Amino acid sequence: MIVNVGDRVRITHGPHAYEGILMPLEGALKETYVSLKLDNGYNVGFSRDDVSIELLSEGRSFNATMPEVDIPYNEDLPDVAILGTGGTVASKIDYMTGAVYPAFSPEELLQLVPELAKIANIEGKEILSIVSEDITFSDWKGIGREVVRQYERGCDGIVVTHGTDTLHFTSSMLSFMLHNLPHPLVLVGAQRSSDRPSSDAALNLISAVNFAGTDCREITVCMHADMNDDYCYVHRGTRVRKFHTSRRDAFTTINGRPLAKVPGSGPIEYLSAYRRGSNPKEDLSLDTGLEERVALVKTYPTASDIVAHLVDKGYRGIILEGSGLGHTPHTLHEEIRRGVEEGVVFGMTSQCVHGRVNMNVYRDGRILKEMGVIPLGDMLAETAWCKLSWVLGHASDYEDVRSEMLRDVAGELDPVSRIDAYNVCR
Amino acid sequence: MIVNVGDRVRITHGPHAYEGILMPLEGALKETYVSLKLDNGYNVGFSRDDVSIELLSEGRSFNATMPEVDIPYNEDLPDVAILGTGGTVASKIDYMTGAVYPAFSPEELLQLVPELAKIANIEGKEILSIVSEDITFSDWKGIGREVVRQYERGCDGIVVTHGTDTLHFTSSMLSFMLHNLPHPLVLVGAQRSSDRPSSDAALNLISAVNFAGTDCREITVCMHADMNDDYCYVHRGTRVRKFHTSRRDAFTTINGRPLAKVPGSGPIEYLSAYRRGSNPKEDLSLDTGLEERVALVKTYPTASDIVAHLVDKGYRGIILEGSGLGHTPHTLHEEIRRGVEEGVVFGMTSQCVHGRVNMNVYRDGRILKEMGVIPLGDMLAETAWCKLSWVLGHASDYEDVRSEMLRDVAGELDPVSRIDAYNVCR
Repeated sequence: MIVNVGDRVRITHGPHAYEGILMPLEGALKETYVSLKLDNGYNVGFSRDDVSIELLSEGRSFNATMPEVDIPYNEDLPDVAILGTGGTVASKIDYMTGAVYPAFSPEELLQLVPELAKIANIEGKEILSIVSEDITFSDWKGIGREVVRQYERGCDGIVVTHGTDTLHFTSSMLSFMLHNLPHPLVLVGAQRSSDRPSSDAALNLISAVNFAGTDCREITVCMHADMNDDYCYVHRGTRVRKFHTSRRDAFTTINGRPLAKVPGSGPIEYLSAYRRGSNPKEDLSLDTGLEERVALVKTYPTASDIVAHLVDKGYRGIILEGSGLGHTPHTLHEEIRRGVEEGVVFGMTSQCVHGRVNMNVYRDGRILKEMGVIPLGDMLAETAWCKLSWVLGHASDYEDVRSEMLRDVAGELDPVSRIDAYNVCR
Repeated sequence: MIVNVGDRVRITHGPHAYEGILMPLEGALKETYVSLKLDNGYNVGFSRDDVSIELLSEGRSFNATMPEVDIPYNEDLPDVAILGTGGTVASKIDYMTGAVYPAFSPEELLQLVPELAKIANIEGKEILSIVSEDITFSDWKGIGREVVRQYERGCDGIVVTHGTDTLHFTSSMLSFMLHNLPHPLVLVGAQRSSDRPSSDAALNLISAVNFAGTDCREITVCMHADMNDDYCYVHRGTRVRKFHTSRRDAFTTINGRPLAKVPGSGPIEYLSAYRRGSNPKEDLSLDTGLEERVALVKTYPTASDIVAHLVDKGYRGIILEGSGLGHTPHTLHEEIRRGVEEGVVFGMTSQCVHGRVNMNVYRDGRILKEMGVIPLGDMLAETAWCKLSWVLGHASDYEDVRSEMLRDVAGELDPVSRIDAYNVCR
């Protein structure tokens, strides 16, 4: 049976049958795979050899060409570069098939989100194409280098689109790698792809581009603020965390307030103090010295074996995500003690997520602190992991590493706890 | 120099000096240790050999005897057993020295919190004395056995006091170990010990004892609801998590609503459906078949080595705390695949904490699911770790383990997501 892209089909795979619209695939994939857009909006892919396909109804013929868009350069608007790393936020849709493509030419971006033309002159570039859980140290260095190139080229702000799984790792890592930003660097993602009616892609992207035109000199994350489609929050890159698997307002500032509220292209409302001003372009520096042998270990009752193994494998730093104020079960104490003796640096954060470690209160905390475990205050575990990689990239003496870990570099460490930073409504 | 308990002293330890009130110590400890109550309310302990002690001013003489309390038995009130495991919630204070002692005779408990006499006939028993991060499988079995003994003795409800670090692990583990509760079982802790002005101990304990007199047949956690001292929330034992290092309202129900609001000894307001009724005492069962070789692994970008090592060490089950909808970096895929081949059971939860895993949406999730990783819906990672220990204590066939992990046993798994279960006010 001949079926075409856009047709409604039934695909039978073993005992299961799936109905939906046949989607286009690019390049070599289309020889071996078929892809189906289900009625619930999700896509499913199958190996061609494993399925039988039945035509249910013919679709309209598929037209992949886009109408042309005229984009006059507007001297009054900032020049913003949009760098794609593989998230779903900057993607274009064929509304007949529901297929999602990355969209990175200025024409494509403006077809996708025409409102961008009102707030910035847009340049787009796809620099990576990964699912974000697979991001590596080499990817972070590549993003950093491209950011420097774009600033040197003369743009007034940069937006990086990114998958949401590890968006906060990337915003943290870049916060330690890039110093003296001349202009804003805003990371943005989308929890739901642009082909779903509830997509957050457009508002997030417009808000991010809007914020990229400000005088903020920090690395930030811009995402939906609540369940409505009204505005986004801009979060400090070292203070933010993905805190829900699927909601559009999944990203939350922990132990602090967001920096700003951005209603798409509307006026920005600042909520917290932020680093601003104009750094001369020549002061910008990129620091790619990262230690890759760093681990993150969340403890649990009776936990053992893991730390000893990482020490044996030659890891140089381990961030512990301990319980409460910064404790581990005693079953880990000897492993940690041996690690410290062998020169491994341990930092303590809390799996409570909110609050700060205090290793002076209880005996277990004092024991670990006396061993040499560094209490990392109110730093997030994910941020601490990034920071330890960066610090160990430059220092090896324990006291040097310790003092760097306890120095606030990018807003990751605050000696004062804010009373309004844990307002969970139940 | 002769110093006495209650004196204000300066203790010098290496380069550091500490001022405060010298505290009493019990038994053999007082031969080798000294304990100091600092002005900030915390206690610090020192080895006698390491310090020099200087008298600053003499205290009043220390009187450890308590005034007698007359406790008439009230037939209209429920009999509630309070079992202590080592938390700070049930402790008595000498207000001159600030020393904290466990308080477990009915007399002591009523001296500590006289209001308890109005709502229950109290029996107290210290069954363990541990810091909660050190809790073990053997401790959980011991608590379970004591709970059964107390129900058999005829009490109408049980309150277990517990340190807060792992309170939610214990409430989860007991939820899988104890079946057909004839009466309530309420776990309670305190974030701040009774000698601090802001202590939550009294309200938490009164509210827990109050709730222990209800018809709820679930294992619950009762803790402060907000920053005021007005009421507590009762959380389902498998749905709760310590979510702040120090705040009194640190415990939060995740992916759901608390079961009830309890204003100390006042009228209880129910917020959610709960398991109720009267199970005959003979239906109560305690199940101590727990597999101890289970691990919890939180993933991070580039993570590797850890899973392979746990497989090699003979672990039988591993709960992954993956990113987003249930993903791991590809660097772990082969380790997981080998683990599955060697019979290790993997369950997937999300480090987003809120929401639910869905391993059908993205390719990485589908790959892991096809390998055999079990997607655990909206189950908390800590709860999943407890449940896997319990399930592997009884089943070894993969399909049996899988179907047990996906069966809701104690409210830990809900097919429906609640819209009001993630109302973070920023």
